[in-house]
Amino acid sequence: MNNKLLVLGTMAYDAIETPFGKTGKILGGCATYIGLSASHFQTECGLISIIGSDFEEEHLNLLKSKNLDLGGVDQLEGEKTFFWSGKYHNDLNTRTTLETQLNVLTKFNPKVPENFKDASIVLLGNLDPNIQLEVLDQMHKKPELVIMDTMNFWIESYRDKLDELIGRVDVISINDEEARQITQKHSLVEAAQDLQAMGPKYVVIKKGEHGALLFNGNDIFCAPGLPLEEVFDPTGAGDSFIGGFAGYLVQQKKISFEAMKTAVIVGSALASFTVQEFGTSALEKMTFEQLVQRIQAFKSLTEFEIELI
Amino acid sequence: MNNKLLVLGTMAYDAIETPFGKTGKILGGCATYIGLSASHFQTECGLISIIGSDFEEEHLNLLKSKNLDLGGVDQLEGEKTFFWSGKYHNDLNTRTTLETQLNVLTKFNPKVPENFKDASIVLLGNLDPNIQLEVLDQMHKKPELVIMDTMNFWIESYRDKLDELIGRVDVISINDEEARQITQKHSLVEAAQDLQAMGPKYVVIKKGEHGALLFNGNDIFCAPGLPLEEVFDPTGAGDSFIGGFAGYLVQQKKISFEAMKTAVIVGSALASFTVQEFGTSALEKMTFEQLVQRIQAFKSLTEFEIELI
Repeated sequence: MNNKLLVLGTMAYDAIETPFGKTGKILGGCATYIGLSASHFQTECGLISIIGSDFEEEHLNLLKSKNLDLGGVDQLEGEKTFFWSGKYHNDLNTRTTLETQLNVLTKFNPKVPENFKDASIVLLGNLDPNIQLEVLDQMHKKPELVIMDTMNFWIESYRDKLDELIGRVDVISINDEEARQITQKHSLVEAAQDLQAMGPKYVVIKKGEHGALLFNGNDIFCAPGLPLEEVFDPTGAGDSFIGGFAGYLVQQKKISFEAMKTAVIVGSALASFTVQEFGTSALEKMTFEQLVQRIQAFKSLTEFEIELI
Repeated sequence: MNNKLLVLGTMAYDAIETPFGKTGKILGGCATYIGLSASHFQTECGLISIIGSDFEEEHLNLLKSKNLDLGGVDQLEGEKTFFWSGKYHNDLNTRTTLETQLNVLTKFNPKVPENFKDASIVLLGNLDPNIQLEVLDQMHKKPELVIMDTMNFWIESYRDKLDELIGRVDVISINDEEARQITQKHSLVEAAQDLQAMGPKYVVIKKGEHGALLFNGNDIFCAPGLPLEEVFDPTGAGDSFIGGFAGYLVQQKKISFEAMKTAVIVGSALASFTVQEFGTSALEKMTFEQLVQRIQAFKSLTEFEIELI
């Protein structure tokens, strides 16, 4: 197992409104969050994405400074970068999309660079399942671990391709509503069983402020949501989570339920930083020492002594 | 500290409909669930409640067989026991009340038996805050620990009395929506801070399938929800929880954040049994060995190794 992590996803500009404020165009996209999150670990991490000529040098430099390999990022001259704008409601659990400009995304033909065709871990961020499959097909051999994310849009409109993809991955990471939507089961235990029957040995179900669940056969792990005084902007939380999850595993060079338990906590800790500021700010500034402290906080949060009689 | 636990609450008959079935009149009421739950621990537990002449001998015998002291239970000749009937919706998180017959509850003048006026722990189950205060006023001295529960109805319509009560208890145990309703804060961390400022040193916030949070100053403990394949009937889950919480503490004769962490897990384990069958059935049959096994399951569910680099 090498320490190469290949990440497919969008690089984008976002404009975000929350009850606490409003941004102009800021750096976003799932590959961005995943990469910044994974960059905290010892990994050779390459991104596959597409951007327009409006994508700023400053942002390319930021990603490069975090040792992210951009050899798989296509920049289209005269085209514009994917743009999303949305508004979060008061409880921060729901949001309304104000505008989506696909721009370069409509011309995305992902190309895996030669030096990443043997990556141990491939992380397929939320995108059209056809594009996710295209990346998988370009690998030299089956990676040690393939992880995928998706969202309601693909579940509703691309179900056949999505099922084909789910059949080919080892880990699916989705939120509780998406798990219920795919399986039509309300119980998350039953939903996770059904998802495993579709292919992936490991199922991660994200529950937002309530934490995350990891399923593997009959084993279940429950990561708490860190009770935060204030969530500022939930954008990128799921991507930061899975980026940390994958970055930790590829660094450890270990694929097991035990390793994934810690990986889920690592991912949760990274996501807890992301939501404390707009966009990628917190993720950029965070030190490894702060990350370790927060992981320790997750441990303290759930530890208790059994002492009966 | 003695091992006496005094419990105030309703003893009732319920008729329950869930997506899985429907019951006739079955034993219910918060004092019943609390008592049955606490009876699994070494405690002298007395109930204060009121019942009608229709309350069946069989049910009185059941409670006596669990060593519950019924000296504080008033039986009114020619009157009927409190009756509630409700229907749970498909997701089991919401329910509609079909019928409420207050019956004897309108004539409830709680009387604390002499031998319980020195109880170490007093647990004020969900009832009119005036009645909860009346019980507190009858104690010989301030108990080691006073625990209270309440619900949206009292928050909306009895706010002044409720605030007076909250100011006199050590632990408040409520669900997330109620915590938000009382404090008008969306963040549960902020809500718990506000609740502590109102009086109780300890705040327990129940989150249903997502577990529970315990707050004390800056310390937070997070108990996971046990992922269950099937929840059959949520009635009494919160009462089983707090009954186990109090029963464990009075047995241990320890009042501390550390002890309460375990108490929250004990309560969660008891609630996880309750919801697996209609009414009090699971709680009645459960053995102490099964309880210990389930507590161990809660421990396994959240344990992970920190192993970075």
